[in-house]
Amino acid sequence: MSDDYRSMWADLGLDLAAHDMLLGVLGEAYGKMYLTQANRPAGMSYFDFVMSEVHGLRIKELIDEKKAGRKIIGSYCVFVPEEIVLAANATLVGLCSGADFAMEEVERLLPRNTCALIKSAFGFKLGKVCPYLESADMIVGENTCDGKKKAYESLAQLVDNLYVMDLPQVKSDKGRDLLKAEYQRFQKAVEELTGSPITVASLQQAIRTVNAKRAAIHRLSTLRKADPAPISGMDALLVNQVFFYDNPARFTDAVNKICDELEQRMKAKSGVFPTKNPRVIVAGCPQAVPNWKLPMLVETAGAVIVGEESCVGERGTRNLTDEAGNSVDELLDNIVDRYFQIDCAIFTPNRDRLHHILEMIEKYQADGVIHYGLQFCQPYLMEALPIEKVLAEKGVPCLRIETDYSMEDIGQLKTRIEAFVEQLS
Amino acid sequence: MSDDYRSMWADLGLDLAAHDMLLGVLGEAYGKMYLTQANRPAGMSYFDFVMSEVHGLRIKELIDEKKAGRKIIGSYCVFVPEEIVLAANATLVGLCSGADFAMEEVERLLPRNTCALIKSAFGFKLGKVCPYLESADMIVGENTCDGKKKAYESLAQLVDNLYVMDLPQVKSDKGRDLLKAEYQRFQKAVEELTGSPITVASLQQAIRTVNAKRAAIHRLSTLRKADPAPISGMDALLVNQVFFYDNPARFTDAVNKICDELEQRMKAKSGVFPTKNPRVIVAGCPQAVPNWKLPMLVETAGAVIVGEESCVGERGTRNLTDEAGNSVDELLDNIVDRYFQIDCAIFTPNRDRLHHILEMIEKYQADGVIHYGLQFCQPYLMEALPIEKVLAEKGVPCLRIETDYSMEDIGQLKTRIEAFVEQLS
Repeated sequence: MSDDYRSMWADLGLDLAAHDMLLGVLGEAYGKMYLTQANRPAGMSYFDFVMSEVHGLRIKELIDEKKAGRKIIGSYCVFVPEEIVLAANATLVGLCSGADFAMEEVERLLPRNTCALIKSAFGFKLGKVCPYLESADMIVGENTCDGKKKAYESLAQLVDNLYVMDLPQVKSDKGRDLLKAEYQRFQKAVEELTGSPITVASLQQAIRTVNAKRAAIHRLSTLRKADPAPISGMDALLVNQVFFYDNPARFTDAVNKICDELEQRMKAKSGVFPTKNPRVIVAGCPQAVPNWKLPMLVETAGAVIVGEESCVGERGTRNLTDEAGNSVDELLDNIVDRYFQIDCAIFTPNRDRLHHILEMIEKYQADGVIHYGLQFCQPYLMEALPIEKVLAEKGVPCLRIETDYSMEDIGQLKTRIEAFVEQLS
Repeated sequence: MSDDYRSMWADLGLDLAAHDMLLGVLGEAYGKMYLTQANRPAGMSYFDFVMSEVHGLRIKELIDEKKAGRKIIGSYCVFVPEEIVLAANATLVGLCSGADFAMEEVERLLPRNTCALIKSAFGFKLGKVCPYLESADMIVGENTCDGKKKAYESLAQLVDNLYVMDLPQVKSDKGRDLLKAEYQRFQKAVEELTGSPITVASLQQAIRTVNAKRAAIHRLSTLRKADPAPISGMDALLVNQVFFYDNPARFTDAVNKICDELEQRMKAKSGVFPTKNPRVIVAGCPQAVPNWKLPMLVETAGAVIVGEESCVGERGTRNLTDEAGNSVDELLDNIVDRYFQIDCAIFTPNRDRLHHILEMIEKYQADGVIHYGLQFCQPYLMEALPIEKVLAEKGVPCLRIETDYSMEDIGQLKTRIEAFVEQLS
């Protein structure tokens, strides 16, 4: 690692020794889980590079942007509209939350029975190992689940730039009104932060930029319908994860380049797994970098993941924002319409999510569904039971998994997943 | 038990054998925990009678009301305004949720890691042992915590008369608007159910009735300031529990009668515990009948509970509704103003709750606080940590308890509570 990076991390207030350890573990895990995959698309080398520089070059870019007067906004949720952030001349990045860190300190602030994702976010702060968090000029929290809602009250004591967005729980007229009011309030807060008022032109451009990123992901998803699968679920998940970190235009190009390559593979009927391989949809909680435990187990068991029904996946990316509008207010309405469709489990009822899972099974010709639930994530764990019931009625095998970020249950999970994959063969 | 009751329960569809077992256990627990207390106020005999007839005479009364054309509405939350229910010529009752029942069946519908209160509500339904639930013409759910919010989606499959009320998460203008809109929608739904439109007069009368019930509880609370404590926390909790079941006017009279008696006791400087006894506030999750585990442990350990910061306690009862208003809409605004003050942990931020706990410590001259959290109740478990921290800063001892309805941890709890009481002495 270059000396430049070390002084950059020190300037950000990171704990260098702890951070070295984190990067060591991350690099090793990536090498073992990712670089050992067979037949990877050549285009994945871009993502390998991104991952090798995820705390290096990308952070340097953000710092350079800051030096040039641009603001960095960090978020933990797909309800934070990147369109508004970009239109006000700021950059949106996802914040670290995919690994356990400083758990002893975390459990002094949060109950042990809190989901791994929330505890992880605190661990990265308390352990001083997330350069994204430390670079951010504004951190956006949001009232999604009870866990996050209450955790932000404590996070507010640890950072001085937390902004909390309220969210509706029901898709009613009042719910939409609240979302619009909150997006308007967020617009003002971001404009105030950057000093750059949003214009029709800047918002329209931002919508185009984010839509292009989503369209590239949609193109990638469509290619995953093919048999043999042209890309592993591991790699596709990584692309979905990098969606939250990378420069949008560069990311879009990289994804489209992979898609060009995958189209060639499809013509040649070549792929990463044999034809008629068991095909799986993973549904449920988001999997943030470096939380690759489940897909690694699924794909080393011989199945291929063909779609992610997740915030880091289709739940986060599936709808585009309408680009047509003659005023900021009209464009904001388009944004509200787009985000109000997100079928997060915090909504009640949330039938759209079940419909989307069924649609994905059909679209990607999946043989089964693995419902991935983080322990203590009540909304997704509670939705898992009725989803499993409906899938059973339709004859679709479903494996319901409840886990965290530790590796303690890996043996047990491996056995269950292998048995499930066997059932699909 | 009279044959009349048995045929009434059979008509309600109860499982008579299971229900007999429940009443047996309930009666035994009540006898052991309540009737063994020393120096009980004579007025508690009314509540002993109520409890002995909680599934008997009170249900018969409700059935008689139904025969006379009145409707019964059941609820699980203090956000359901009794004023609106009474004004539309219906009766509000709390639904059973204080004991484990039919847990094997429950865990087929809800994750094991769901709080005891929610699992209990399902257990009473699946086990067919709650005559209140089976008598109800409408069951009101509400979007408070994630657990309840999602559980109502499953409860809707088990009952055909579930009405779900949306609730805000933030005390903003938008939050108040939502509460008002939801109370207006509830008013219409209740009016439609009963066929009795709410009038200024009926609503004003209903507000008076509910306020009288609350005022009686306030009077009782005030008397608990005395040293020696004139009534046990066990008995005061029971009064707060019966608040949800009994006929409002009769309840008000019974509580006031006890207060008359307690005033005599105070003049005579007599009480249920010695003077200078350690005094405790219990704060946190609601304790529904027959969940008397914690107060029983606290008071047999030699402390007296002088206040409940709980939905079954001051959180539920502490504010009155303004009776002044010339239209249904004005009175409805008063109702919204009153309920919007409830400092439920679903709100963020929820600083009022901490202030209320501090106020109660002062008012009731408490020596310490026991924070009662139901396992997997994220909102209260998460609030417990910052509350404990503030209390520590102020030198107020705080014991943070996390438990469920089982008796498995009773030995461990007893040891911890005894050590805590020792510390207060």
